[in-house]
Amino acid sequence: MPYTDIVTALAILQFVWFGMQVAQARGKYGVPAPAVTGNETFERYFRVQQNTLELLIAFIPGLYLFNHYFNPLWGAGLGVVYLIGRQIYSTSYVKNPKSRGAGYALSALPILILILAGLVGAVMRLAGH
Amino acid sequence: MPYTDIVTALAILQFVWFGMQVAQARGKYGVPAPAVTGNETFERYFRVQQNTLELLIAFIPGLYLFNHYFNPLWGAGLGVVYLIGRQIYSTSYVKNPKSRGAGYALSALPILILILAGLVGAVMRLAGH
Amino acid sequence: MPYTDIVTALAILQFVWFGMQVAQARGKYGVPAPAVTGNETFERYFRVQQNTLELLIAFIPGLYLFNHYFNPLWGAGLGVVYLIGRQIYSTSYVKNPKSRGAGYALSALPILILILAGLVGAVMRLAGH
Repeated sequence: MPYTDIVTALAILQFVWFGMQVAQARGKYGVPAPAVTGNETFERYFRVQQNTLELLIAFIPGLYLFNHYFNPLWGAGLGVVYLIGRQIYSTSYVKNPKSRGAGYALSALPILILILAGLVGAVMRLAGH
Repeated sequence: MPYTDIVTALAILQFVWFGMQVAQARGKYGVPAPAVTGNETFERYFRVQQNTLELLIAFIPGLYLFNHYFNPLWGAGLGVVYLIGRQIYSTSYVKNPKSRGAGYALSALPILILILAGLVGAVMRLAGH
Repeated sequence: MPYTDIVTALAILQFVWFGMQVAQARGKYGVPAPAVTGNETFERYFRVQQNTLELLIAFIPGLYLFNHYFNPLWGAGLGVVYLIGRQIYSTSYVKNPKSRGAGYALSALPILILILAGLVGAVMRLAGH
């Protein structure tokens, strides 16, 4: 399903972009590898990337689970919400970690829907529906 | 294969649950974002979540590799062992990190079997079996 | 496609190997769980493993995206370059983090090609080509 594949590729490229911002922040804020602490702003960029990794491991399988039982166009739509939510999360976290809630919710809720719907779809398939 | 999808969804929901425990521990033990150190108990919850992320990147592809060459019901069974092992790992790690070995083994060994079996299956397929 | 599955399994086993080196370094350099800092050499091993996790979440979906639209043998070939690049990255990072650039590029570029090609393939499919 091309829509699913496009959303998957964009989510990974967004994550690659967050990683490039971490690499740049290493130089800008003086945090040489292997350290990942020592400067608050660097740590914000780093946590944005790490938190996105934590979501991707749920988002990508969730997208394919959902699509197996429901309309992939709805799955791709939830994926677009995720992409926007992550962008808001990144911008707000770097400004002020305390303001990260809205972007977090907007990127985590679509994933929860994908997973729970996939679970319901699989259980109903087993039950013969 | 619904069994595989159910196990995948449950493994991700278990990981989401570990993440919610980390979020809760941030408040309870006074570790505001972006910090991920400063309180030993928080760090235990955090390491449980991070280590589960490290296993999921192997578990999910491993499950689908295995199922491509062997009986998916066996794959799902190994997945159930993984789920139980992770729950034991989480509980024991938070109590005392030194006691994490048994839960770790019970969740890591099923993954190793999935991957190695998938590798053997793929090589045998190439060899024409 | 057996070639893809073999490359996927090898990439995961390489990551498992990096994880075993982290576990060994915990004892050797005196960094008991849940700590992940305190010894520079341990931190190098740990960052190698963590950075490989960051790449795997892009590499594995990228491989399957690519294979959906292009010749899987080319995808597997890019995967072999990734595996070699990661091995160079690991060895050079542990010796001296400043020398990690070449191994990083050799493992990150194949992933970028897989993802971008997958994106182009999906967009062209949508456009009816």
